[in-house]
Amino acid sequence: MDSLSIVILAAGKGKRMYSSKPKVLHPIGGEPMLARVIRTARALKPARLIVVYGHGGEQVRAAIPDADLIWAEQAEQLGTGHALKMALPHLPKDGKTMVLYGDVPLTKADTLRRLSDAAGAGMAVLTDVLDDASGYGRMVRGADGKLQAIVEHKDCTPAQLAIREINTGMMALPNARLAGWLAALNNGNAQGEYYLTDVLALAVADGVSVDSASVDASWEAAGVNNKVQLAELERILQRNQAQALLEAGVTLADPARIDIRGELSHGMDVSIDVGCVFEGKVELGEQVEIGAHCVLKNVKVAAGTKIAPFSHLEDAVVGEACRIGPYARLRPGAQLAGHVHIGNFVEVKKSVIGEGSKVNHLSYVGDAEIGSKVNVGAGSVTCNYDGVNKFKTVIGDNVFVGSGTLMVAPVTLESYSTIGAGSVISRTAPAGELTVARARQVTVPGWKRPQKKTD
Amino acid sequence: MDSLSIVILAAGKGKRMYSSKPKVLHPIGGEPMLARVIRTARALKPARLIVVYGHGGEQVRAAIPDADLIWAEQAEQLGTGHALKMALPHLPKDGKTMVLYGDVPLTKADTLRRLSDAAGAGMAVLTDVLDDASGYGRMVRGADGKLQAIVEHKDCTPAQLAIREINTGMMALPNARLAGWLAALNNGNAQGEYYLTDVLALAVADGVSVDSASVDASWEAAGVNNKVQLAELERILQRNQAQALLEAGVTLADPARIDIRGELSHGMDVSIDVGCVFEGKVELGEQVEIGAHCVLKNVKVAAGTKIAPFSHLEDAVVGEACRIGPYARLRPGAQLAGHVHIGNFVEVKKSVIGEGSKVNHLSYVGDAEIGSKVNVGAGSVTCNYDGVNKFKTVIGDNVFVGSGTLMVAPVTLESYSTIGAGSVISRTAPAGELTVARARQVTVPGWKRPQKKTD
Amino acid sequence: MDSLSIVILAAGKGKRMYSSKPKVLHPIGGEPMLARVIRTARALKPARLIVVYGHGGEQVRAAIPDADLIWAEQAEQLGTGHALKMALPHLPKDGKTMVLYGDVPLTKADTLRRLSDAAGAGMAVLTDVLDDASGYGRMVRGADGKLQAIVEHKDCTPAQLAIREINTGMMALPNARLAGWLAALNNGNAQGEYYLTDVLALAVADGVSVDSASVDASWEAAGVNNKVQLAELERILQRNQAQALLEAGVTLADPARIDIRGELSHGMDVSIDVGCVFEGKVELGEQVEIGAHCVLKNVKVAAGTKIAPFSHLEDAVVGEACRIGPYARLRPGAQLAGHVHIGNFVEVKKSVIGEGSKVNHLSYVGDAEIGSKVNVGAGSVTCNYDGVNKFKTVIGDNVFVGSGTLMVAPVTLESYSTIGAGSVISRTAPAGELTVARARQVTVPGWKRPQKKTD
Repeated sequence: MDSLSIVILAAGKGKRMYSSKPKVLHPIGGEPMLARVIRTARALKPARLIVVYGHGGEQVRAAIPDADLIWAEQAEQLGTGHALKMALPHLPKDGKTMVLYGDVPLTKADTLRRLSDAAGAGMAVLTDVLDDASGYGRMVRGADGKLQAIVEHKDCTPAQLAIREINTGMMALPNARLAGWLAALNNGNAQGEYYLTDVLALAVADGVSVDSASVDASWEAAGVNNKVQLAELERILQRNQAQALLEAGVTLADPARIDIRGELSHGMDVSIDVGCVFEGKVELGEQVEIGAHCVLKNVKVAAGTKIAPFSHLEDAVVGEACRIGPYARLRPGAQLAGHVHIGNFVEVKKSVIGEGSKVNHLSYVGDAEIGSKVNVGAGSVTCNYDGVNKFKTVIGDNVFVGSGTLMVAPVTLESYSTIGAGSVISRTAPAGELTVARARQVTVPGWKRPQKKTD
Repeated sequence: MDSLSIVILAAGKGKRMYSSKPKVLHPIGGEPMLARVIRTARALKPARLIVVYGHGGEQVRAAIPDADLIWAEQAEQLGTGHALKMALPHLPKDGKTMVLYGDVPLTKADTLRRLSDAAGAGMAVLTDVLDDASGYGRMVRGADGKLQAIVEHKDCTPAQLAIREINTGMMALPNARLAGWLAALNNGNAQGEYYLTDVLALAVADGVSVDSASVDASWEAAGVNNKVQLAELERILQRNQAQALLEAGVTLADPARIDIRGELSHGMDVSIDVGCVFEGKVELGEQVEIGAHCVLKNVKVAAGTKIAPFSHLEDAVVGEACRIGPYARLRPGAQLAGHVHIGNFVEVKKSVIGEGSKVNHLSYVGDAEIGSKVNVGAGSVTCNYDGVNKFKTVIGDNVFVGSGTLMVAPVTLESYSTIGAGSVISRTAPAGELTVARARQVTVPGWKRPQKKTD
Repeated sequence: MDSLSIVILAAGKGKRMYSSKPKVLHPIGGEPMLARVIRTARALKPARLIVVYGHGGEQVRAAIPDADLIWAEQAEQLGTGHALKMALPHLPKDGKTMVLYGDVPLTKADTLRRLSDAAGAGMAVLTDVLDDASGYGRMVRGADGKLQAIVEHKDCTPAQLAIREINTGMMALPNARLAGWLAALNNGNAQGEYYLTDVLALAVADGVSVDSASVDASWEAAGVNNKVQLAELERILQRNQAQALLEAGVTLADPARIDIRGELSHGMDVSIDVGCVFEGKVELGEQVEIGAHCVLKNVKVAAGTKIAPFSHLEDAVVGEACRIGPYARLRPGAQLAGHVHIGNFVEVKKSVIGEGSKVNHLSYVGDAEIGSKVNVGAGSVTCNYDGVNKFKTVIGDNVFVGSGTLMVAPVTLESYSTIGAGSVISRTAPAGELTVARARQVTVPGWKRPQKKTD
């Protein structure tokens, strides 16, 4: 196969997004639209990937750090033909070039492969067939079925208006002809722009073979010009992702109420309740159950673990058969071994918690190393911060931390130590012993309850 | 223009609502249906607004406290014509009267303006065109296109059954004729009711011009007779509101999963994740991000602030670039300056928190004045209540409150003071000093762990 | 009426579920599909209920413990006719037998009653009429309208292909003929299976009357072969349940965002906000309001109680006019009297709380008996666990528990006792007195704040 170049047109401002962010950086499925188009393009293993940028160029380049991208600036927005011309200096003399759009995010790689195949050594256009083609450029074919021209809606004859096959804008072109065709484009139209679609007629005139490929679904060719369209495509993407999960055997309580912004991988017999949001890279082992309204970001959850509703996990690793939540918060660096229980209103940050240990109620565990079979009582806190520095709390195996214990780090609770409820522990609690720091209980004689003040 | 009176018919019981509340008080978009109709009516700046009430009159009048409303009682429910007759004593001799319905909540003011304009000095009916008009009163027009009568479905000839233009019930009428027409209505029908629709034929007979205006969408004329219809209109309202936000540039993760019950205003580049509920008056500054499943009621959030999932804010003010949540609860009277961090499982009530201060974990802050750059450690509590009275906690700038600190109000922590973890502070903590209240840590020799009891 | 036997075919593996669980055990509306079919079948009061099981038989029998079921094993999967044959030994000589499917979960009992009635002493088939019948077995009728045969799609003549009435597979059959018909089935088809549908032709040949009944909606006959279909039926079930609640007068903020997995009963004027999940048996009294994103499982809530967002209640009883949440967690055994307030980040487990008592902030109450008019301050904990045993905390009426109190069970706080903030109470706090356990507040002279460490 000839070498393939892919040019992504990404120079538009997106005025109707009403945003300070360039249009192609608005996220879909959690990543900038342009990043998604680039990811799809890479699936075709192109020899080079050129992004034509314009508005907000600095922002765009900063947001897409891929080192191998070739950036071509289009300083003025003079149409798609003009945009592609900006990429010309970076294209080789032979091979072919596919033109994609940074604001058309949901095209499938397989569809683009068909487009490339259809082009062969000539040209091919990606088309769609609509029930109502109003407003779109029509694919005009001859009696032999061969493509002859793309005719804009307003220029259509009555017969052409009846054509339901339309141009998506995506195409593949032979590099050998490209410079000539682009030079031949003219901007004699209402907008004063150079239209890439006009190359089709030039190809036909040159006797170059012109073929087409079709999208499987119209959303593959749908572009984003405003937040309404962005929300529509986001929903389509989410619906497609949910459908793929269902087909792979995941139980979803409601396919319309799961959001995946990244990659969700899973074992067998995983079930996910309503209202969950997954971001980044999430891995769920076999038999994992995710309760309603959970948020997981960059999390690995091993087999058999159940996460109860309203839990929030980020950059965390959860072992097998754990019980998490409800209302559990695992922050970055939380690493739980197997059979760990993290209960309600518990926050764990940058801490390793050993096999079978439990922190079940209203506690803060930060910068801690906790052994196995430890029980941390309700209302306990690792005091890991002195206002400027963070310190570590080390808890051995089989430690029983009474409720309301404050562990003033750096501090160690040795294995099998027991801490009396309500203690502030600032020095090592020796192994196997009971350590307490508690004031004596006294009853104050003759004390009277306060009275309601009246001002 | 002649002076405009608006009469809102709101006397129905709404038996099929199965509720102790009068039908027109059931909320849509967070306010009683009747209040919404009144709000729309006010957009036309009517000279007077008359509400015809009946069932649950006391409740209705109590729920709608607008002082300028004229209330007309309809003691018996004898039809729409009878209902309007109850308003007659309050109508001037000239000008025109528009008739609206307390259980038709979503009509747009622009549509009503068109209705008023269509009436001119005569009469006009608000109509809709349906694909399937079964069951509705048809608008019968002459060969000249002029309205002749409204014919109920069951009385239609086969030709009339084919008419798709239907009566919505809303109309504008010339006051000069109204008394006469209403007096001429008869109740010789199956229900024994006086139908307002019959005035159209009387107007035609009197040679009064009768015109029409049309709704833009059928939901403008949709009435509520049961909770199914109420839920349907609620969804339509929410969908419309979401659409308006998208069109104004707000990013919504899912337009079908946002509920706005009141007024949501916003700056540029605001994004709102799934499952959020907004009540009352909410203002979101530029770049504000609202995480999944948040509830905000009467809240003002300044630019750049991010609110993480599961946060609940009510009657609160949040400054610029704050970090709130997840699981943060701001209760009435919480006022945060800029760059404040309120973390998980933290409750703030009636407290002012200064620039850059942080309350990150499991704390209760109530009736407090907190300066800038303060750090309140995990598990801290302002003990603001003695069982009968509430007291204030004052914390100066740059104070470091150790974890698990209990501040027994009234109490002051002076600037730059530091409180040792686990202290109960009941007297002033002096500026710049370390104050602690902590028992000595001791290890109990020879102590044995409890054994499992077997009964 | 002749005695009715019901046979439920439940032997399929459900390969496309990609699950280790037999297909019929996958839950819909919170219960295994098979359990739901059994429940529907029981509404017909059959003389016997026979389940034909196969794949994962042990699991199926363990999951459905009903003692009166008759289990018939189908060791090999040789078609529906073969499956029914496995039930033959358990069927009486007379009466009739209805055949249902363990993976067709949403058929209504009324529909099955019509099927039984249609059968009379003969045979009847449950049919559906589809706009597009492609792929389904067609109900072929004679000129007299009488059923003659069920013809599979691939065997249909062009005329038969136009038939829109299809076979659902459910049927009622006369026991007297059943053994003969099943013996006469042959497996001369592509799949090599014995098809139950072939009995219709045998019945006609035998001169047995064959009639039909129809489903009200196609989902009554929809089967589940994969998770996509399971999710679709789950949504239909949920939509139907929401519709029923609306029709009964419950206010639902969004009928598409409520999940009921069990039984939800309610009084008048109940309202339920978005995102709520109900499991097991939930009873909501009059005027109960459930806020957004709550999870309730096996809970009884008395009249006038409001539950704020993000609350999680399980196996709990809540009295009248309580205020619960937001972020309240009631665990099994929580029993609240009337007018109790449970606030944010509060966990209550196996505890009785008396009239008018309040636990408003960040507390853990477990294994406690709390009297009336008690106030438990923020950050209080019942220390009910010594690592191996659980103990009880008893709090009398009118007790004021200061914030940050740790109650080391077994312990009693007598009526009208007051506990100073931050106390660890391990012995009886006497009635009417103030009891404290608190270290003295001291300020450390000359102390310096820690400096930022630089490594």
